[in-house]
Amino acid sequence: MNFTIQNVFISVEDGYANCDVQVINGTIAAIAPHLDIVGTLINGKNKLLLPGFVNAHTHSSEMWQRGIMSAFPLELWLAELYDFAPLDLEKVYLSALGTAVETLLSGGTSVVDHLVLIPGKELETIATAVRAYQEVGIRAFVAPLIQDESLSASIPSGEGSQIHEPYFRPTTATLEIIEEAVRLFHRPDEGVSLLVAPTGIQLCSDDLFLGCIELSDRYNLCRHSHLLETKAQEKLALEKYGCSAVEHLKHIGYLSDRTTLAHCVWLTDADIAILAETKSTVVHNPLSNLRLGSGIAPILKYRQAGINVTFGCDGASSNDSQDLLEAIKIGSILHNVTDFDYQYWITPRQAVEMASLGGAKGLNLGDQLGSLTVGKKADLVLYDLTSLSLLPRTDPIGLLVLGRPVHAVESVWVDGRQIVADGKVTTINIEDLKQSLFHHSQWQPKRKSQTAEQIEAHYRKVMGL
Amino acid sequence: MNFTIQNVFISVEDGYANCDVQVINGTIAAIAPHLDIVGTLINGKNKLLLPGFVNAHTHSSEMWQRGIMSAFPLELWLAELYDFAPLDLEKVYLSALGTAVETLLSGGTSVVDHLVLIPGKELETIATAVRAYQEVGIRAFVAPLIQDESLSASIPSGEGSQIHEPYFRPTTATLEIIEEAVRLFHRPDEGVSLLVAPTGIQLCSDDLFLGCIELSDRYNLCRHSHLLETKAQEKLALEKYGCSAVEHLKHIGYLSDRTTLAHCVWLTDADIAILAETKSTVVHNPLSNLRLGSGIAPILKYRQAGINVTFGCDGASSNDSQDLLEAIKIGSILHNVTDFDYQYWITPRQAVEMASLGGAKGLNLGDQLGSLTVGKKADLVLYDLTSLSLLPRTDPIGLLVLGRPVHAVESVWVDGRQIVADGKVTTINIEDLKQSLFHHSQWQPKRKSQTAEQIEAHYRKVMGL
Repeated sequence: MNFTIQNVFISVEDGYANCDVQVINGTIAAIAPHLDIVGTLINGKNKLLLPGFVNAHTHSSEMWQRGIMSAFPLELWLAELYDFAPLDLEKVYLSALGTAVETLLSGGTSVVDHLVLIPGKELETIATAVRAYQEVGIRAFVAPLIQDESLSASIPSGEGSQIHEPYFRPTTATLEIIEEAVRLFHRPDEGVSLLVAPTGIQLCSDDLFLGCIELSDRYNLCRHSHLLETKAQEKLALEKYGCSAVEHLKHIGYLSDRTTLAHCVWLTDADIAILAETKSTVVHNPLSNLRLGSGIAPILKYRQAGINVTFGCDGASSNDSQDLLEAIKIGSILHNVTDFDYQYWITPRQAVEMASLGGAKGLNLGDQLGSLTVGKKADLVLYDLTSLSLLPRTDPIGLLVLGRPVHAVESVWVDGRQIVADGKVTTINIEDLKQSLFHHSQWQPKRKSQTAEQIEAHYRKVMGL
Repeated sequence: MNFTIQNVFISVEDGYANCDVQVINGTIAAIAPHLDIVGTLINGKNKLLLPGFVNAHTHSSEMWQRGIMSAFPLELWLAELYDFAPLDLEKVYLSALGTAVETLLSGGTSVVDHLVLIPGKELETIATAVRAYQEVGIRAFVAPLIQDESLSASIPSGEGSQIHEPYFRPTTATLEIIEEAVRLFHRPDEGVSLLVAPTGIQLCSDDLFLGCIELSDRYNLCRHSHLLETKAQEKLALEKYGCSAVEHLKHIGYLSDRTTLAHCVWLTDADIAILAETKSTVVHNPLSNLRLGSGIAPILKYRQAGINVTFGCDGASSNDSQDLLEAIKIGSILHNVTDFDYQYWITPRQAVEMASLGGAKGLNLGDQLGSLTVGKKADLVLYDLTSLSLLPRTDPIGLLVLGRPVHAVESVWVDGRQIVADGKVTTINIEDLKQSLFHHSQWQPKRKSQTAEQIEAHYRKVMGL
């Protein structure tokens, strides 16, 4: 579909311009005042047009446990999460729809789903999420979450030594599943890309990382992992490798300009230099890092070191929403308390660039996505600046990033296709989705995770609590 | 108006009950299953009823500068704020309406407005805000912001000594204005209370504090101030008093069980003991403290010391919204990174109690407001649990506090009077308000504060930047 947005605010150096924007065959064809109207006319008056953001790290099926998880740090929280994980393809489908919808309605046009796989139904899980994202029309980056060590291995041993159950599936079998998934579902031109996504050093062997590197190189896939989310993982890396996790990942060749690393809370200055040197991208998940008490990632240091940083909501069990604007706001202002010198604080305009172009760069698509540039794909979001939450009129981007916008997203296009109009997703029936989410769930009395109870004493001892 | 909410979720010890709630003459008359229907029947199915929250610290007229303020610490930010302050009663009126509406739609039934007064029109400013709050129907606590020192006095002198302009009005004249305002507008039974509200030690003489204490005692008024919001104020207190600000305020008798203190970021352990001993209330403004880089208030320490803590949005120039649920969420999870021991983390249920009963206690109304208790005033909020943002069903309060609710507030009653129905404020015309906010403002190009420029070099030197 071709269209022309007329008389819309766009961001220019230190201010705004009122322009027309032409989109032809999914591509931004022209940006200038007083263009000819090509295709459908969209009235841009009192609206702001921005490139779509990337929800650069989430786990869609965690939506089933949002609002209910205990106040736990990651290691105990994970035990609770897995005790109650939904092992049901219909739920995988519905939570992928929900994640896509909430991402779109908060300014995102792309989602990186670090997708938890149902054991024994790995390809079906991936197929189901892909189907949901294609139905909604969001640009999807599906990163099947893999590991080859059992959960207890993610907690440092401390002074004693711990024996862990072997993982239920051999590493090679896991890699074969991923390769098959790539053959079946990796269709970047159709808006679905697969990523290799070993969950992180806490649950993956070097063989798994090396297999992923090989697949990444052979099929031109991006790489996605958690990295040093908690202090426990910092300890674990020292026990496991005798060096920092970053040094080890560099050593085995995992870090690259198409590697995105979620969290990155516990890095040393030497680690930071390595991320900069390898051109890796940091995905900042501020709300999850607060909720789980993981810590405040040193984002201002990353930016000063020249590292590309973008934002993610993380899964809805550790946040507990998929509102990208909320993650961008908190992920910006949180760091003002880490450096008294306000010259380094992240401004709203910088935050927008991190969330759009920063996300695109991390996915190796900086030349195709992430800015209002002629020739780039039309992944666009139009914000209504007359929403009460954005009034009175001051600075559009300041209001959007630092305020708490309610129903500010009016229209969204992905690859030039409109999938949100008048603030509503047009591709799926939202009432049906609400009904399904309601009927596939129930209000829960206080529940207890047995696994968390089992490992809690050891966790508290190792962490000195 | 009498009414009965039927079949609604209410929070009980460690869970929920389905109950009916009867309200007669503005008071909660009964809470039990299967009550007789008295007055209007309200269907509570799939809804959660909570006591209204208190937006316990804000400055309504800052709404005119939200989204536009520079990335500055408080001292420079204040200079910018005052350079562009709206000196216009119509604007005071509109921003009080806007503040009330945003507070109501995020679960608040009371607002404490630390109201910036237009010089020379002090009583008119107060009258205008009171009129706005009465029109909306929110319970209003108007705290006219007073000082008797000029702005430059709020920055520490450092090694040199600084001469400050005298304040434009004598202290006694200011106190007379406040006393007249109390006579004219302090009508607790009609939902409007006045507070004495010297802005803080950074801009107030002891004479002003003592005059406020005297008015507070004579007219039974609560006391409200900023306290140790920034590190600069900590330094200033030492220069000014030779002791901490808290020690000084205790010494002059300002601290009491009806004193609410906004921010409280830079307190020592000795200061914390004083707040506990004097039964003072801390108003936590997490978003503002992040935005201005003020720091993370030691809220977990306050709670462990037994200090009453509640939440505020702070003014919309330092946040930049009036979404109380956002302040409660961030004000809860932020502190998980300050203590590894998750046993001390604030749970969603605790956060709800802090926001409701905690707010009421700070206003010396713990016996009348802040909980679903028979005999208390019916300041109630009904949340629709079928909003997409609160699905799937898990734990209602967990979803509300840790999620990002969108249009979850269905109905609000203040003193038993319904002022929000079907998610819309019923007492004023919101479209008219939007139009007025739009037409009284304009998109602003990059602006510069001359005062901030003038004081910046001194500020950087004193703060070691």
